[in-house]
Amino acid sequence: MALENGEKPGSSFVAVRKPNDCTILLLRLVAFLATLAATLVMALNKETKTLVVATIGTTPIKATLTAKFQHTPANVFFVVANAMASLHNLLMIIVQLCGGKFKDKGLRLVMMAILDMMTVALLSSGDGAATFMAHLAKKGNSHARWNKICDKFDKFCDHGGGALIASYIGLLLLVVITVLSIIKLLKAK
Amino acid sequence: MALENGEKPGSSFVAVRKPNDCTILLLRLVAFLATLAATLVMALNKETKTLVVATIGTTPIKATLTAKFQHTPANVFFVVANAMASLHNLLMIIVQLCGGKFKDKGLRLVMMAILDMMTVALLSSGDGAATFMAHLAKKGNSHARWNKICDKFDKFCDHGGGALIASYIGLLLLVVITVLSIIKLLKAK
Repeated sequence: MALENGEKPGSSFVAVRKPNDCTILLLRLVAFLATLAATLVMALNKETKTLVVATIGTTPIKATLTAKFQHTPANVFFVVANAMASLHNLLMIIVQLCGGKFKDKGLRLVMMAILDMMTVALLSSGDGAATFMAHLAKKGNSHARWNKICDKFDKFCDHGGGALIASYIGLLLLVVITVLSIIKLLKAK
Repeated sequence: MALENGEKPGSSFVAVRKPNDCTILLLRLVAFLATLAATLVMALNKETKTLVVATIGTTPIKATLTAKFQHTPANVFFVVANAMASLHNLLMIIVQLCGGKFKDKGLRLVMMAILDMMTVALLSSGDGAATFMAHLAKKGNSHARWNKICDKFDKFCDHGGGALIASYIGLLLLVVITVLSIIKLLKAK
């Protein structure tokens, strides 16, 4: 802990903080890309299929069905949460790169840690909602008589799964970033 | 900010910290009760109904259906998340009441802030999942042909809604607690 070393505060402060800042910046960049990818993959997720719904004599009756992410509120929330997380990380990268002139360093670090924590909460909520909705789409729920739809819209479900994985990578990185932000607070004196 | 005042560190430290600790303790207690209530209400949520599924001549054919929280994975996760949050708050209350003897105060505060943040993420994920599943149960989803079930199991849905509200109160308090934990870190020098 920085509390225990007896070095000159100024020099040790710089030596400790510089690599930490770089790590956080890099993590933020990867997290930003991950949540951005999740946003785009989910937002562009759409599959149209023509299914045979009945047969009269030998003539098949076809229906064209479209699966869109907008049809499920949980997926809309997922897109919003990921877009917000991307925006947050982008803003924090800008603040970290250009915010060296701010006077009140303590307040800035506290604000960053709090905003990080809130973004983690938002993103984790979006991921939770979309994950269980995806589980329902894949497996169905016999008790509620909700049929699975992934057997019909397999590409739609694959893309959704990809977006979920990207979003979870972003969430994991954001949790690590928040932990580092919190640890930084103790060092910043 | 505490950085700027020129008072004797010891006295101002005590004056600032004492009420803050008390506030956090009180908030934690209410958050604990809220998440505990959410856990219990959801875990005990069960409704059995006898419905007429068909009529042959004048004889109605009845079926007994039971709605249980275990039937929906999102609700199981909701119960686990709320139970974990209750346990976390209970442990933190014990640490705060009995942990005065620990030497490394900085490390303890960092650990508490990090654990708070992770509990917020877990609880928020559980709330997100259960909320969108409840929305589906209430409104249905015509695109995926998932019918609403709240018209049949109204008591089940009401109890689930109550659990959600309690859990959201717990989540809100936990976010406030985490913010206070983070602010405390800057003051603890």
